[in-house]
Amino acid sequence: MTTSKTRPALNGVDTPTLFATLDAVKANPELAKFQFRATNQWLSGTHNRSAIRGFFGAGQEDTTRTADFTYDADHPAVLVGNGNGPTPVEFLLHAIAACLTAGIANVAAARGVTLREVSSTVEGDIDLLGILGLSDRVRNGYQAIRVSFRISGDAPEDVLRGLVEQSRARSAVYDVLTNGVPVTVDVTTG
Amino acid sequence: MTTSKTRPALNGVDTPTLFATLDAVKANPELAKFQFRATNQWLSGTHNRSAIRGFFGAGQEDTTRTADFTYDADHPAVLVGNGNGPTPVEFLLHAIAACLTAGIANVAAARGVTLREVSSTVEGDIDLLGILGLSDRVRNGYQAIRVSFRISGDAPEDVLRGLVEQSRARSAVYDVLTNGVPVTVDVTTG
Repeated sequence: MTTSKTRPALNGVDTPTLFATLDAVKANPELAKFQFRATNQWLSGTHNRSAIRGFFGAGQEDTTRTADFTYDADHPAVLVGNGNGPTPVEFLLHAIAACLTAGIANVAAARGVTLREVSSTVEGDIDLLGILGLSDRVRNGYQAIRVSFRISGDAPEDVLRGLVEQSRARSAVYDVLTNGVPVTVDVTTG
Repeated sequence: MTTSKTRPALNGVDTPTLFATLDAVKANPELAKFQFRATNQWLSGTHNRSAIRGFFGAGQEDTTRTADFTYDADHPAVLVGNGNGPTPVEFLLHAIAACLTAGIANVAAARGVTLREVSSTVEGDIDLLGILGLSDRVRNGYQAIRVSFRISGDAPEDVLRGLVEQSRARSAVYDVLTNGVPVTVDVTTG
């Protein structure tokens, strides 16, 4: 029987390197400390643009990213913007889908499951009476987020469901969205 | 003195329409109920792609977006991915910067403050011992997020700081990230 330590690459996941990385971090837990970053510039109205590039992790500044990833955000016309990008809250839906999906691929590779398809839809319900300042009884953010996965692969249904459950249990974005995180906001003027 | 109701467009914000929108929602609070959505497809390994387009709000399905906004996410090589996009957690940093910045522009227009610059950097600290399953004492998500704004405009420092504070107090993404939101994950197999 193939043990997890000797599993081959699967689903596009370099499984041997994944297990080697786990071993390296076990031996030196400091490697697990990461800092991610984004910068943002206001353009006009509700239109602004973020750049994502540098990060610290595995004991050093990353040098593999040679260009910025840039993303525009805006409000749609119905919210008095110009629709130059999705709204900021829609990027939260992308983030949760992406995090769970990456986890499913990793867990599947570690468990020897070949995936055929992983797709998802995410819905977020929000009542804008909160952010519009029209009700103090309505929260500013989403009231609920629903993620619906469709997954197929060479394993029984319970095994496929177990991949999603394990990904959820170890998802960084799921943790942040469900449990919250301390956010500080500092300001420099002039 | 100019009252808020008669303020002109400012900072690229159509202030009269902003106030008209507030009046319309006051008259019919059902208009404030929105649903945002994203779909995601797994591509290979930790690489996946989201599409953002349709949403419901102001009593109807949106028809103004005529194409998908698409976003790739991936893990960097050091996390056994191929770096085809930022990590999912980095999109959270974009989302908080974008939400606060859009709010600052709106609040400034409503208060008659002309902005010159709004820029920000966001840092998120995360210890991957959590998601790697190497420690049950370390959370999966960010341990802290710090947003640092630089803002300048034709108002005294306390007024400029007040714009950021009011934006934070009414930010949908800030609320979600700091307070959390219920997230359900459903699975269909086969």
